[in-house]
Amino acid sequence: MTETLRLSVEGQGLHEITGVIRNWLARQTVSSGLLTLFLRHTSASLLIQENADPSVRRDLECWFNRLVPEGDDLYTHTLEGPDDMPAHIKASLLATSLAVPVLKKELMLGTWQGIFLWEHRYFRGHREVVLHLQADET
Amino acid sequence: MTETLRLSVEGQGLHEITGVIRNWLARQTVSSGLLTLFLRHTSASLLIQENADPSVRRDLECWFNRLVPEGDDLYTHTLEGPDDMPAHIKASLLATSLAVPVLKKELMLGTWQGIFLWEHRYFRGHREVVLHLQADET
Amino acid sequence: MTETLRLSVEGQGLHEITGVIRNWLARQTVSSGLLTLFLRHTSASLLIQENADPSVRRDLECWFNRLVPEGDDLYTHTLEGPDDMPAHIKASLLATSLAVPVLKKELMLGTWQGIFLWEHRYFRGHREVVLHLQADET
Repeated sequence: MTETLRLSVEGQGLHEITGVIRNWLARQTVSSGLLTLFLRHTSASLLIQENADPSVRRDLECWFNRLVPEGDDLYTHTLEGPDDMPAHIKASLLATSLAVPVLKKELMLGTWQGIFLWEHRYFRGHREVVLHLQADET
Repeated sequence: MTETLRLSVEGQGLHEITGVIRNWLARQTVSSGLLTLFLRHTSASLLIQENADPSVRRDLECWFNRLVPEGDDLYTHTLEGPDDMPAHIKASLLATSLAVPVLKKELMLGTWQGIFLWEHRYFRGHREVVLHLQADET
Repeated sequence: MTETLRLSVEGQGLHEITGVIRNWLARQTVSSGLLTLFLRHTSASLLIQENADPSVRRDLECWFNRLVPEGDDLYTHTLEGPDDMPAHIKASLLATSLAVPVLKKELMLGTWQGIFLWEHRYFRGHREVVLHLQADET
């Protein structure tokens, strides 16, 4: 089963998509298998991180923004705006594809794990995430 | 085939788990396919790196500890201890899921590759790694 | 379907392999499924990034070379040359395995995405990438 989700993002930052993924999974006939998420963009990322305390996410964003600042003299690729080259670098440091095992229609995430779409650009619109669900043999 | 391994860690650092994975694989009936490892935690990571010279691992740990130090003024999430926020950042920079093809019951690792569970916290206890083995069609 | 490709690299830097992967895919009988790429080395990486404007790649390489420079006093693993320990660190920050869904014999990459083999060493020769193609049920 393969489906492309169009997810709305409202600017730079971590957008939790665990609920969207869970809802999608609930509508599939597959009970157990492997879910692969693939992001079709080079200036955003997929991340599994803590979804309990929002201060974790805030510190993560601040830390990455400091590591990969805008306006670095090193950048020559500047035509698409000050947020573009930092976005490509962050996307390289983070993940474009993720795999999560599924058991009895549940993502096998740990207690504190959520799935996030990390938008690196000042962008409001849609991003595409392909979901591929491979069923276990029965 | 899906199984959750509980792996013992003895504090911060790289713990090689290649042997544990190989032993698990030897007990399965599947001969060829794809092994996916999924870590159910947000303050530890999975890594494939050189397992020959221990100085590589030592330098890796030192380098990451310098890049993501404890006590950074940037952190606001400090209630869970000085090692907590650096652990979340390292877990974001490294991998939560990994895939390794399997051929005739052997992991298709390169000569120098080992699989590691990288514990980022001062933690002694157990971490859970889900192993998902998808058989190739025959 | 599992096959190991031997890919030629001509020194440090990003080598696009999207075309090689597409050609390989065209020769397979599988129409839809999941393609997993696995790199059998600890001093090179796989990356999905923009393949349109070459200045993105140039800035990426410069940025990573500045983050992980040669000759850092921290390194104790120096016997294999000044490019060796930086290569292991970059390989840890980037990816060893990637997954891309395949639909009707096409990689489901976004418009601007290409697949790259990132050689971190001053190395001319061959690197091995395992391709594993899992067919969807029909």
